[in-house]
Amino acid sequence: MAKGVTPKSEDYSKWYTDVITKAELADYGPVKGTMVIRPYGYGIWESIRDAFDKRFKDTGHVNAYFPLFIPKSFLSKEAEHIEGFAKECAVVTHTRLKSTEDGKGIEVDPASKLEEEIIVRPTSETVIWSMYKKWINSYRDLPILINQWANVVRWEMRTRLFLRTSEFLWQEGHTAHATEAEAREETDRMLEVYREVLEDVLAVPVLTGKKSESEKFAGAIDTLCIEAMKGDKKALQAGTSHYLGQNFAKAFEVKFQNEENKEDYVYATSWGVSTRLVGALIMVHGDDKGLRLPPKVAPIQVVVIPIVRKDDDSSELMDYLHPLISKLKDSGVRVHVDDRPKMSPGFKFNEWEMKGVPIRLEVGARDMENGEVFTARRDTGEKFGLTLDAASVKIPELLDEIQNSLFNQALEFRAENTHTASTWDEFKSIVEKGGFIKCGWDGTAETENKIKAETKATIRCIPFDEDPSGINCIFSGNAAKHQVVFSKAY
Amino acid sequence: MAKGVTPKSEDYSKWYTDVITKAELADYGPVKGTMVIRPYGYGIWESIRDAFDKRFKDTGHVNAYFPLFIPKSFLSKEAEHIEGFAKECAVVTHTRLKSTEDGKGIEVDPASKLEEEIIVRPTSETVIWSMYKKWINSYRDLPILINQWANVVRWEMRTRLFLRTSEFLWQEGHTAHATEAEAREETDRMLEVYREVLEDVLAVPVLTGKKSESEKFAGAIDTLCIEAMKGDKKALQAGTSHYLGQNFAKAFEVKFQNEENKEDYVYATSWGVSTRLVGALIMVHGDDKGLRLPPKVAPIQVVVIPIVRKDDDSSELMDYLHPLISKLKDSGVRVHVDDRPKMSPGFKFNEWEMKGVPIRLEVGARDMENGEVFTARRDTGEKFGLTLDAASVKIPELLDEIQNSLFNQALEFRAENTHTASTWDEFKSIVEKGGFIKCGWDGTAETENKIKAETKATIRCIPFDEDPSGINCIFSGNAAKHQVVFSKAY
Repeated sequence: MAKGVTPKSEDYSKWYTDVITKAELADYGPVKGTMVIRPYGYGIWESIRDAFDKRFKDTGHVNAYFPLFIPKSFLSKEAEHIEGFAKECAVVTHTRLKSTEDGKGIEVDPASKLEEEIIVRPTSETVIWSMYKKWINSYRDLPILINQWANVVRWEMRTRLFLRTSEFLWQEGHTAHATEAEAREETDRMLEVYREVLEDVLAVPVLTGKKSESEKFAGAIDTLCIEAMKGDKKALQAGTSHYLGQNFAKAFEVKFQNEENKEDYVYATSWGVSTRLVGALIMVHGDDKGLRLPPKVAPIQVVVIPIVRKDDDSSELMDYLHPLISKLKDSGVRVHVDDRPKMSPGFKFNEWEMKGVPIRLEVGARDMENGEVFTARRDTGEKFGLTLDAASVKIPELLDEIQNSLFNQALEFRAENTHTASTWDEFKSIVEKGGFIKCGWDGTAETENKIKAETKATIRCIPFDEDPSGINCIFSGNAAKHQVVFSKAY
Repeated sequence: MAKGVTPKSEDYSKWYTDVITKAELADYGPVKGTMVIRPYGYGIWESIRDAFDKRFKDTGHVNAYFPLFIPKSFLSKEAEHIEGFAKECAVVTHTRLKSTEDGKGIEVDPASKLEEEIIVRPTSETVIWSMYKKWINSYRDLPILINQWANVVRWEMRTRLFLRTSEFLWQEGHTAHATEAEAREETDRMLEVYREVLEDVLAVPVLTGKKSESEKFAGAIDTLCIEAMKGDKKALQAGTSHYLGQNFAKAFEVKFQNEENKEDYVYATSWGVSTRLVGALIMVHGDDKGLRLPPKVAPIQVVVIPIVRKDDDSSELMDYLHPLISKLKDSGVRVHVDDRPKMSPGFKFNEWEMKGVPIRLEVGARDMENGEVFTARRDTGEKFGLTLDAASVKIPELLDEIQNSLFNQALEFRAENTHTASTWDEFKSIVEKGGFIKCGWDGTAETENKIKAETKATIRCIPFDEDPSGINCIFSGNAAKHQVVFSKAY
């Protein structure tokens, strides 16, 4: 099973694809650039989705569903939005098929041509704000705190499973507020929800900060973001939270009567994370044996492999294991027993290692005699015996330990590969070996563009805890307006 | 709030739309025929979805996600499938927009025309079986028990919120098996899951049976179905489970090595329910005051309305209610406190009645003095006082009672409106007053078509418990091949 996985160090991008294929996480669909999320990959996405959904609801949000189809004219309403975004879209022009004359094939019926073309949503600000116009009249109708779980489409030329595909799954929050302060508070709150889920659930440490003007979302006043470091030391944007001001409200004429009985435009936010996070998990935690899943998102946390000699009866072994398995399930541990016949234990070990299951229990006749279960940790590779009695208590503890250990390994990796640069030569040499670079920036788009042109590094974020005092721009040498983090990114 | 709801008896279809609008369940989207599912409607859908999802997983199924986009050529692979289905589709022909020359608008870039048009999925058999071909080699790879929660598109001319819209949400199960017997068992199992959720969770009684040849799914060998009776005595198809035989496996060349080392085509099933079920809930349980929700699917099961006189302090009342509310929440009851200021209790009563919340608790100063809460049941309209102590025990019991009472009311309604016909005149007079008609059918499509042409009634199903012995066809007078249920349907 593990055969054929290209080592990470040899070809990172081949390694990534190999893991996805071998762990059966996803596959390309028949239309170029589309992705099939296979059950094991989807199980991980369900864990991630549920973790976010719970927190969205705990912070007062409700889910809704808006249409996939957007009239073409909507996309030109918010000028910046269309300028900076959404040119690569799937366009629906016809609404009927018919049989070909020979009766064997099928063709598009030209008579079904639409008067106005329809766009498959690349994001839903426009369609949602066209509805908010109908729903909002007074401050009493505010805030609206809506989230949607949906598929979106952006036609991509160069695709990569989970990271960039024509269609992907995501959540998009779209909120409407009576004041700027409230909307900004919401933008901050949701970024903090993102940070918390990434770090505490996905065990992925992230930088939090603000995007520069050139990197922000088209139509936003401010874009806040979380940025992770992948195993190849490049950055991966993992989630964004936008303060949209009154831009969309103005484009869609969404006014309300405020408490002072005056008319004002509504203030907006939007925020999203996507199936890209499954890619982040693979890239941050994976190794040359495959995936390593943090227990909190693992569809299977503990796999039990009974080792039965050919033609032997497995029922005694299963009776032996039964009390432990029930106790673990009662403690909320997701246990799976792999009792597939005619497969060698070695094959199974490799398969579950590839799939990143945090703990593997192997139990044969001798373990049963000793009253033990043989335990293997996926994160460290450690193997040890546990008495059957101890196991039901020890395993939930081990899962917590593995969750923390994966986070700390990733944190350490990021620390090792984060550098401060004070000269341009230093900057260039760090870009070459990879990693995050903290340095001063004069705040101009010109400098940003020049650095990008010369090194391919971009400003990942202006960290909330920046301290630009007394430092100079790494490129222009002028006084720094911000202390920023540069890196190459996916 | 209740003002403006057309009485059911006056105009059923206007009543339906009014309830959806006033209860804020859904709205039409900007593109003709599309639907926005508003938070309250989506909350109901989440309850329905979760009830199914749990049962799918309990019966060994896993979720996955397949692409929205299907190459046009796929739809012509299964001849019957395309013949009977899917002509009204959204067709994607271009993949890029560009700014118009004046820079103010946006237009489709003609250079982005696709070589082969892409169809937005109307259902996913074809794309899924194209993937199964890659994943299935041997009987060891079977069964595949996959479900998908997704949006699908069927271009509809005459739309109706929840019942028929261009885009809707659904689940579609697609399973692959090594034998016909196993696949047929799966088809039956999933129909039983559907029946159980409809009756035990949605409180909607359903007939179970098989579709006639002319009513079955295009590409299926057999279509099993559940059929509900709406408040206008018409039938509503609420879910279908198809035995597909080897039709799709043959179309997509999906062969496997069976246990005897011989090659065979894989056997298939597919099954689905959709957001149409929200429509079923409204139509089966609603009354002239709006929705009546079965507690198991109600986003809010108990609404608490503190009655505070203008400028009075509500904190004493809230302190009084706090222990009851906590106890109810601890028992898993979904409680909502409506403490919106500047709104009259009467307005709130109407709003929550419209939204179908099963139990309303009204509490004012006098109730507090008496140590009581005033209780109103949405299903029967009964109102009575409960002591605060009794309420925490009595309310969960009441919710069960309401769940049963709604089911029984619907069951009674169906019984009253189900008739047996033995002459053609009898048949026609029953069709006129509405309801289900049990009668004999000679099994020919000819008879079926003639009955439909003359009365608009169709065979809803051949019930599993049919008894055709000794009866004659209601139309031709020949010996009945089946005892069937006819009705007009949505």
